[in-house]
Amino acid sequence: MKPPVFILVEPQLGENIGMAARSIRNFGFKELRIVNPRDGWPNPRATAAAADAFDSMDVSVSTSIHDAVADLHSLFATTARTREHQNLSPTSALQHVYSNQKNGILFGAEKNGLSNAHIALCQYAISLPVDASFPSLNLAQAVAVIAYSLQNLNPSLDQNPSPLASQDDIHALFSSLSQKLKQAQYFSPQNLASRTLRIQRLLSNASLSPADVRLLHGIFRALSGKNQPSHNPNT
Amino acid sequence: MKPPVFILVEPQLGENIGMAARSIRNFGFKELRIVNPRDGWPNPRATAAAADAFDSMDVSVSTSIHDAVADLHSLFATTARTREHQNLSPTSALQHVYSNQKNGILFGAEKNGLSNAHIALCQYAISLPVDASFPSLNLAQAVAVIAYSLQNLNPSLDQNPSPLASQDDIHALFSSLSQKLKQAQYFSPQNLASRTLRIQRLLSNASLSPADVRLLHGIFRALSGKNQPSHNPNT
Repeated sequence: MKPPVFILVEPQLGENIGMAARSIRNFGFKELRIVNPRDGWPNPRATAAAADAFDSMDVSVSTSIHDAVADLHSLFATTARTREHQNLSPTSALQHVYSNQKNGILFGAEKNGLSNAHIALCQYAISLPVDASFPSLNLAQAVAVIAYSLQNLNPSLDQNPSPLASQDDIHALFSSLSQKLKQAQYFSPQNLASRTLRIQRLLSNASLSPADVRLLHGIFRALSGKNQPSHNPNT
Repeated sequence: MKPPVFILVEPQLGENIGMAARSIRNFGFKELRIVNPRDGWPNPRATAAAADAFDSMDVSVSTSIHDAVADLHSLFATTARTREHQNLSPTSALQHVYSNQKNGILFGAEKNGLSNAHIALCQYAISLPVDASFPSLNLAQAVAVIAYSLQNLNPSLDQNPSPLASQDDIHALFSSLSQKLKQAQYFSPQNLASRTLRIQRLLSNASLSPADVRLLHGIFRALSGKNQPSHNPNT
């Protein structure tokens, strides 16, 4: 699986470019693209702030966003939530940013972030959870947090995190388990609502993969075997 | 539950102090303590980099680390892994940093991080996962990542994340489930090893709380009810 490329679109301050590069490298990424840096390139302030990160990265500079993303597959806009995109948390972005093709993560300029035109190029939006009363992140800090959450530190391992089961799969598992528990008289009128809620929450929060869901279906079927018609050869 | 206090110990650059404050505030924290800032206090560079964060935070400056931590309960050193401490990832730190008492997270100076004497004051170490070939994080970036991972964005909710079940509890749940599955003839000689491993992995990775473990014991007991002697009133 290929790690994503980090793309700074029209960054203004060399210090932020350098600090962004440093943290990208800290968390195991090696590819940085810079589109139209305000103060030109190379930039001594960027070099100073990068603390040698540039020496072990592939850094390229282009004058057009289209050139910068031409070879990439999916693009992720880092921005506040949008209505036009699938909005991902950094955690849920993980399963999309690593793929067999190279993807890109776009960061806008210090002053106003990504423009609508830049966001329109993207298939996904990644939004950081921030305090609504003080939401504006420094560019380099946003890059650091995203790089940390998508860290690429074991390139020898398969980088693709287990995909999560769909909400449909989780709901089907929940329904099947609930039915079996009803048959087993696990619920009483007094505890039905609270136990149902707790089970739902447990299944939703356990980060189950599709394989985990299949495993649990099998386990629940097996445990409740004596309660079930036994003519199903799959039980 | 009280959110932790962020403590910068002998920070050198005003810019880093300001950017650290900004990201602490971005992720919902309001208390910053600064011990012996190299360039004195107030520091115009810190104020500029903080982007008004200081206006809505409680910032205090002291000349002694002991004064800075006097009212705090547990202290967390952000540092590379140590042999003397319980080393926590940012994720596992969550369940320790929020408590009924106020705890503190210590960050060392840009040049060398926390001294051994400072680390010795701490009960825990929090280590960020970094690329071993480029491990040195900028101070403000480290603060941003830690603040993000410990984010305090819903102060009206109970901030205490569910404590995780102990390894002993998980193992007991696994043993009990395995025994029930054996009785239900879920395993064959061919699949015993692989299914056992998958179940163990699933239970270990599901971030189960002690309450989750109790819930699952009850579910497994109920499902396998017909396989069990029925004279136990707790089944």
